[in-house]
Amino acid sequence: MTERLGSVFIENVQPELDSGRYAIKRVAGESLTVRADIFKEGHDVLVAVARWRQVTPAAQKTDWAEVPLTFKNNDAWEGSIPLANNGRYEFTIEAWPDLFRTWAHELKRKVDAGRDVKSELLEGAALLEGAAARAKGRSAEDHRVLAEAGARLRTPPTPDHLLVALSPDLADAASRHPDRTLACKYDKVLEVFADREKARNAAWYEFFPRSAKRDGKTHGTFKDAQGWLPYVQKLGFDTVYLPPIHPIGRTARKGKNNSLRAQPGDVGSPWAIGAAEGGHKAVHPELGTLQDFRAFVDAAKAHGIEVALDLAFQCSPDHPYVKEHPEWFQHRPDGTIKTAENPPKRYEDIVNFDWMGPARDALWKELKSVVLHWVDNGVRTFRVDNPHTKPMQFWHWLIREVQDLHPDVLFLSEAFTRPKVMKALAKVGFTQSYTYFTWRLFKDELRTYLEEITSPPVSDYFRGNLWPNTPDILPENLQNAGPGAFRLRVALASTLSSVWGMYSGYELCEGRPVPGKEEYLDSEKYQLVAWDWDRPGNISDWIARLNAVRKAHPALQQYQGLRFFESDNDRVVFYGKRSPDGLSTVLVAVSLDPYAPQEALLHVPMQWLGVNAEETYQVHELMADQRSLWQGPDVQVRLTPEQPAAIWAVYRYRRTEHAFDYFE
Amino acid sequence: MTERLGSVFIENVQPELDSGRYAIKRVAGESLTVRADIFKEGHDVLVAVARWRQVTPAAQKTDWAEVPLTFKNNDAWEGSIPLANNGRYEFTIEAWPDLFRTWAHELKRKVDAGRDVKSELLEGAALLEGAAARAKGRSAEDHRVLAEAGARLRTPPTPDHLLVALSPDLADAASRHPDRTLACKYDKVLEVFADREKARNAAWYEFFPRSAKRDGKTHGTFKDAQGWLPYVQKLGFDTVYLPPIHPIGRTARKGKNNSLRAQPGDVGSPWAIGAAEGGHKAVHPELGTLQDFRAFVDAAKAHGIEVALDLAFQCSPDHPYVKEHPEWFQHRPDGTIKTAENPPKRYEDIVNFDWMGPARDALWKELKSVVLHWVDNGVRTFRVDNPHTKPMQFWHWLIREVQDLHPDVLFLSEAFTRPKVMKALAKVGFTQSYTYFTWRLFKDELRTYLEEITSPPVSDYFRGNLWPNTPDILPENLQNAGPGAFRLRVALASTLSSVWGMYSGYELCEGRPVPGKEEYLDSEKYQLVAWDWDRPGNISDWIARLNAVRKAHPALQQYQGLRFFESDNDRVVFYGKRSPDGLSTVLVAVSLDPYAPQEALLHVPMQWLGVNAEETYQVHELMADQRSLWQGPDVQVRLTPEQPAAIWAVYRYRRTEHAFDYFE
Repeated sequence: MTERLGSVFIENVQPELDSGRYAIKRVAGESLTVRADIFKEGHDVLVAVARWRQVTPAAQKTDWAEVPLTFKNNDAWEGSIPLANNGRYEFTIEAWPDLFRTWAHELKRKVDAGRDVKSELLEGAALLEGAAARAKGRSAEDHRVLAEAGARLRTPPTPDHLLVALSPDLADAASRHPDRTLACKYDKVLEVFADREKARNAAWYEFFPRSAKRDGKTHGTFKDAQGWLPYVQKLGFDTVYLPPIHPIGRTARKGKNNSLRAQPGDVGSPWAIGAAEGGHKAVHPELGTLQDFRAFVDAAKAHGIEVALDLAFQCSPDHPYVKEHPEWFQHRPDGTIKTAENPPKRYEDIVNFDWMGPARDALWKELKSVVLHWVDNGVRTFRVDNPHTKPMQFWHWLIREVQDLHPDVLFLSEAFTRPKVMKALAKVGFTQSYTYFTWRLFKDELRTYLEEITSPPVSDYFRGNLWPNTPDILPENLQNAGPGAFRLRVALASTLSSVWGMYSGYELCEGRPVPGKEEYLDSEKYQLVAWDWDRPGNISDWIARLNAVRKAHPALQQYQGLRFFESDNDRVVFYGKRSPDGLSTVLVAVSLDPYAPQEALLHVPMQWLGVNAEETYQVHELMADQRSLWQGPDVQVRLTPEQPAAIWAVYRYRRTEHAFDYFE
Repeated sequence: MTERLGSVFIENVQPELDSGRYAIKRVAGESLTVRADIFKEGHDVLVAVARWRQVTPAAQKTDWAEVPLTFKNNDAWEGSIPLANNGRYEFTIEAWPDLFRTWAHELKRKVDAGRDVKSELLEGAALLEGAAARAKGRSAEDHRVLAEAGARLRTPPTPDHLLVALSPDLADAASRHPDRTLACKYDKVLEVFADREKARNAAWYEFFPRSAKRDGKTHGTFKDAQGWLPYVQKLGFDTVYLPPIHPIGRTARKGKNNSLRAQPGDVGSPWAIGAAEGGHKAVHPELGTLQDFRAFVDAAKAHGIEVALDLAFQCSPDHPYVKEHPEWFQHRPDGTIKTAENPPKRYEDIVNFDWMGPARDALWKELKSVVLHWVDNGVRTFRVDNPHTKPMQFWHWLIREVQDLHPDVLFLSEAFTRPKVMKALAKVGFTQSYTYFTWRLFKDELRTYLEEITSPPVSDYFRGNLWPNTPDILPENLQNAGPGAFRLRVALASTLSSVWGMYSGYELCEGRPVPGKEEYLDSEKYQLVAWDWDRPGNISDWIARLNAVRKAHPALQQYQGLRFFESDNDRVVFYGKRSPDGLSTVLVAVSLDPYAPQEALLHVPMQWLGVNAEETYQVHELMADQRSLWQGPDVQVRLTPEQPAAIWAVYRYRRTEHAFDYFE
């Protein structure tokens, strides 16, 4: 509160998440647009700034800097904070009355009304003298200008005095040296975390390296898995995510198709982590050594691919932790260790940590060291298994601790649970989140859900990574379905969000379920699989094309700003995106019918495109590589199970002096 | 944060104003519905309560009490805090896991899945023993029941054990003694101020007591003004608001029609407060004595009318403060005192306080004593003149100080300024606010504006008091207009909001402007006026009828919950209101055309009324006192300049066993 001049109000600050309890997310290289309502009783001219600094990583910590906020309308102000680097920032707002401008403004009105302003000029002199004193030592030039003008206004008035007093340059000089003791500070310091770009823009491919021999019989190794990389690269993915790569427990190991008793040679679930050979920091011997893993990471990098690991914070009963730190686990009253269960489901091959028990501090510290171990071995992206069954404050603590040291580390939350719990995980720090996309099949539900997660306030902290399938989920719509279903769902996933992923086999249209369940038959979670990349009916080309289109068109690399438009057919969804610089614009139409061709009259959003009704504009349909000239809003489209999506890059003709040019 | 069991999240608490910086407004006798999203990772059964206490007035201060919150859906919880008394309350939220119910729930699932639960029963025993220990000294019965059940579960298991463990009564007993060390507390304590009912439901009539002789020549007194009360009562108003009643300055006194030079005998503006006879605590000698004022207040009360005073915190140059406390005023560099101005307007008869100057503390204290002086003399309602030209924090402080002692004091903010400044005044404490209603004439703008101010979040702190005119404002639509314009605007004001007011003369359709301005010709601000209550063309009966309808129908006494409905004619607006108990429902149609009859097809909101399409329902049109039976949603209405509004009380026929009854 300013004590002398009344109260500047700073309200409705945006973005602000839960009164500032959690950080807003952005991407390094973006700027953060800050908005606030700023006002004061009376008619004072106000000045407002956003103050900001980078706080992590420690090496890049900066001092507080300021950017101006500009008055927009209705007491709303706006400004832009540059987030050049990957790391955590703080920002807040400060505003103060510009005494000299206020005075000059009033003076002008009095002069216009024909008043004698002799006394007012003396007030102005005092304000200039104050500003001159503050300018001293900061700007010799400003000091001189302000002091001279102040002295001038103290001399007997001449008409010339008004020219001096009302000079815009003088007002600028006075504004440069405000009396900041009058400033009102917003009562909160807010946080924004600037991720590296992959947080927002990535295409994930999940595969089990143990299947890399692709014969369904011989255990694959990291060396074999290197052979998978050119294929993944050809498909256009930039991230491969591996299920846990650690030694797998033998006690109560699950057999094929999740059977209770493993047969000799059954490989077990990689999520039953830990055996005599080691735990979360070790590599499953059948996959190779830590050295082999690092070589795989390097090979991936050479293919333009990043390796993401699974963080499944649970143990097989054979995990070394169980013997070394029994105090880290939940026990029954009879002293035996508890196995995981969610009745009627039971996971006899898994035991749970006692997250909030008496040994909590040591346990958390160890788990943090697990993350840092893999960071040290070249991993910067983690897919976190079932985070919603562990305490939120653990994740809040862990992610902050890790990102304070390594701001480039990304965490994907694999939570399929209640909406507010999924959002809370994003708030406490997860970079990306799995979503309900997997089960959103129809036009209205797709639109409602995607609009929610790609618009503020949700998009300020939640980034939905869209997966049409996972090793755990073969959704009904893909069960025993033809390639049409696989084509359309992958088109939606890769264009509705800028981050998407799929589990290998999708490109082969693998869709055999355990009857009555949303699970794969002969699930790779429990056995090796012989993937035939050339399997007839595969849609590898379609997926490669989608990823190539994404890579070439910045509009599809944006998470925010998805807009849905009208189509007159409920089975055809129509939407668009644009890059922040406005140079890349795409329109997308996808048929939701995997079985039959669908026609639709699309209503092209002329105003959103910035195209006049009588203007001709060029579109380039990228999936079939066809260019057309369009005019007006009505476009008829026909989509088929073979070609269920159209993606148009929109180019506008710009009338120049001599000819028609166009630009994207 | 709970330290042992993970994190209960308490989010999205409603109502909450600006992170709890300001109090929510309600009315004593209402209850405060509190909503929050409450959840925790995992599957724990949660318990949540709202904690509340009354904090002012001191004599009614209470201890913290608790009301349960109930799970609604999607992790949203809701409960209700009773606000029995007039005063300030605090509330917050607390939630914790119900360990025994969580355990019982899991136990049931395990038993259903055919598990051996021997070990689980021992866990249950431990939970019951903990609850029994906490019950000790609080409930002997609960202690016994819990201890016995705990002991029972430690004996060798029999099928009977499950009956004990899963007994709902046992769970209730355990829930009554929770381990509150596990509770998560919402991190803010929020405030709600419960006003007395007149804050929400009142009809104001403003008149100048000095005109009470009604001959335009002789200065009226408070005694004369008593003669005005039966008339005001007949018109149905419950509040009379008097412009300032203090001695009026002589220096630079304004003459008739705001002329710069007063003529001998000119009475001056009552807002030029203070003369040799006294200042803000004194009574203008020509009106009478303080005793006379008190007698007037008593006489008003006998007519069911409350007296509201004007708080105009400014002075005539003759105010005793000016001599006694020059340090309270703004001075020019030459030492002279500043007169008020808003160039090109100049108020030579008024000087302004130096609100934030060095003598601020003494000044503020004195102004508070002015309010308390009038409170001591029977005044409980103040209309505050131009509050937006004084510091917000002064009002924040003043209103809180006064209401801490006298929670029944109401403050009406007379600010016509930018929207956010008007709202900020309401946030810092003003009970009611003037609005832009005066200039909202057409259907869409009326709807947009009234929906905004009568719905949360605005209605949680802002109560719009609708005035079609004031002594300062004769809006263009009423200038030289016929009675039709006056009838329709008063019908809107008195039914769109539960608080409304008008300045005398309105009922006589006084509409002579200063040409080109929104001001009255021969304004009563500067002269005595000879009001003829029987003037031909007056609409007193219309106004009296409106106020009578308001009094008889609780729906019209509600500020929140205004709903607009469809009418097919842009010049006919159609809306409705309902009392919280659902027993009073009204529909209102008002023609916005003062000149010609208008017909409209109204679309009655059957679902909102709770009436089926085939059901017959009775309506009672209250302005013309006509009953009809309606069926279905289509109603044709004809409104005329003579009868521009229809107000229907809606009665539903209820099918009973033997006959059709109806109820309102």
